[in-house]
Amino acid sequence: MSFKVTILGSSGALPAYGRHPSAQLVEIQNRYFMVDCGEGAQMQMMRLEISYHRINHIFISHLHGDHYLGLMGLLFTMHLQRRTSDLHLYSHRGLDEIITTQLRYSRSSPSFKIIFHRLEKDERKIIFEDDAVSVETIPLHHKIRCSGFLFREKPKLKRIDKTKLPAGILINQIASLKKGEDIFQENGDILYKNENYTLPPKRSRSYAYCSDTAFQKRIVEQIKNIDLLYHEATFANDEESKANETLHSTAEQAATIAKLANVNKLLLGHFSARYKDLTPILEEAKRIFPNVQLAMEGDEITVQE
Amino acid sequence: MSFKVTILGSSGALPAYGRHPSAQLVEIQNRYFMVDCGEGAQMQMMRLEISYHRINHIFISHLHGDHYLGLMGLLFTMHLQRRTSDLHLYSHRGLDEIITTQLRYSRSSPSFKIIFHRLEKDERKIIFEDDAVSVETIPLHHKIRCSGFLFREKPKLKRIDKTKLPAGILINQIASLKKGEDIFQENGDILYKNENYTLPPKRSRSYAYCSDTAFQKRIVEQIKNIDLLYHEATFANDEESKANETLHSTAEQAATIAKLANVNKLLLGHFSARYKDLTPILEEAKRIFPNVQLAMEGDEITVQE
Repeated sequence: MSFKVTILGSSGALPAYGRHPSAQLVEIQNRYFMVDCGEGAQMQMMRLEISYHRINHIFISHLHGDHYLGLMGLLFTMHLQRRTSDLHLYSHRGLDEIITTQLRYSRSSPSFKIIFHRLEKDERKIIFEDDAVSVETIPLHHKIRCSGFLFREKPKLKRIDKTKLPAGILINQIASLKKGEDIFQENGDILYKNENYTLPPKRSRSYAYCSDTAFQKRIVEQIKNIDLLYHEATFANDEESKANETLHSTAEQAATIAKLANVNKLLLGHFSARYKDLTPILEEAKRIFPNVQLAMEGDEITVQE
Repeated sequence: MSFKVTILGSSGALPAYGRHPSAQLVEIQNRYFMVDCGEGAQMQMMRLEISYHRINHIFISHLHGDHYLGLMGLLFTMHLQRRTSDLHLYSHRGLDEIITTQLRYSRSSPSFKIIFHRLEKDERKIIFEDDAVSVETIPLHHKIRCSGFLFREKPKLKRIDKTKLPAGILINQIASLKKGEDIFQENGDILYKNENYTLPPKRSRSYAYCSDTAFQKRIVEQIKNIDLLYHEATFANDEESKANETLHSTAEQAATIAKLANVNKLLLGHFSARYKDLTPILEEAKRIFPNVQLAMEGDEITVQE
């Protein structure tokens, strides 16, 4: 089952050297989520031949332009292409006003329903949940209200051991076995003992998006042991004071969070326009946390089951 | 002296095949004007290595997203790069609210002053003027309030015929000759008769931007005999009914306007995403008006003196 992050943009506030503003697609078990939507995100999707028709949920971390200015264009495009399914937008206060103001002056009434979900400051809350996936906000520390997003697969069903499946077993009995139940005969005697026919469920995977944020250890507990962490690394260590001043992080700080949280893999992004060559950013992080990758436009990062 | 139009984007409402939403730069005698500013315009300028620091006037034809959604990102970038000079924005009602709403939620106070100039519906009016250039609105016919822009050089000074310049002539006397004046001695006798030392001024060039608009002959009189006309050609003739319905033009209609107005050259743009190959658009226009060019990203169209 799919669990994949696709990078559409990983630039900081200023686009530079072909790097685009923040935007990602997160695909989990055929659900398509968008995380941030910087300017040009729809063009990036076209370039990468990614369809946006299946995106039903867009999560905006905060209302700095480099994290949402591609949204309005994407909405207009969806409208022109006659989308009909509901679109859920998650954001701190203001996005609804920003969007409805622009719809009003363009005299556009979208072909689909937009459902706004307001995020609250410093709140850790499950904002999306279905039978397979949950999304929880991560309180971040930035110049304006800002949230990260933690994607988790729900616990999965047990797997049937096909080598041991008895002849004549019914479909509803298989479903019960997957849920971990034993199957009984009418007289109450056991027919199929669960442990004889099943394997443990596959593990539930997880991904956290943390951008933009100053270095803050309080997020460590929430993202403990996750599979994949995207953490902003706007600066290298030589600009630590600038990072402190602007409430951004250095690569070393991002790697420290990854290490403390014992995540499996770290993705770095939101690079400052001052860095043409990002090798120093990568090397700085590697010294603290070896399993690290720079998030580059077009990268697909798959989390294995 | 410079007179050049640079195409940043020439796509219709949907970006397609690498074509970007509408945006142009117009450079006249070292003045830099921007006309429309579709999503990604700042990235296009970076790609083409065009500085936006010298742009002081941005003209937005109308508030459909494909004509202005790159503006907010450009303003944020100018702010982050600590622009200090005033920026003049010309638009129909709404742009000021759209921009100030977004500035408010991002808690940004720009490093420079933004001066909004509101355009009025169906008005033909000079909205910018200095000693060398004027910009006049062209009333267009579209689904929402929409204006084109007519750029004209002011009448120029006469040129000094350097082969005939007398020894000992003073700088202020040369300036007077350029203005067409004769130079007199103190006793009232003529010293330098203007026509003996001067050549006629170079001609004043002109450019009109007309997008988006339905076919309408009423603009012909205003753009009569101009050097360069950009006219939208969203569709080819096979989609004329679609053009009528959406208040856009076909290539044939754009060429008809160019012919009726007796312009020197026609530029076509705002191409529908349904056309991958634009040759039919070009050929259709050529049959009516031969001196025609497709506006493609990165094209620079110079008007000679």
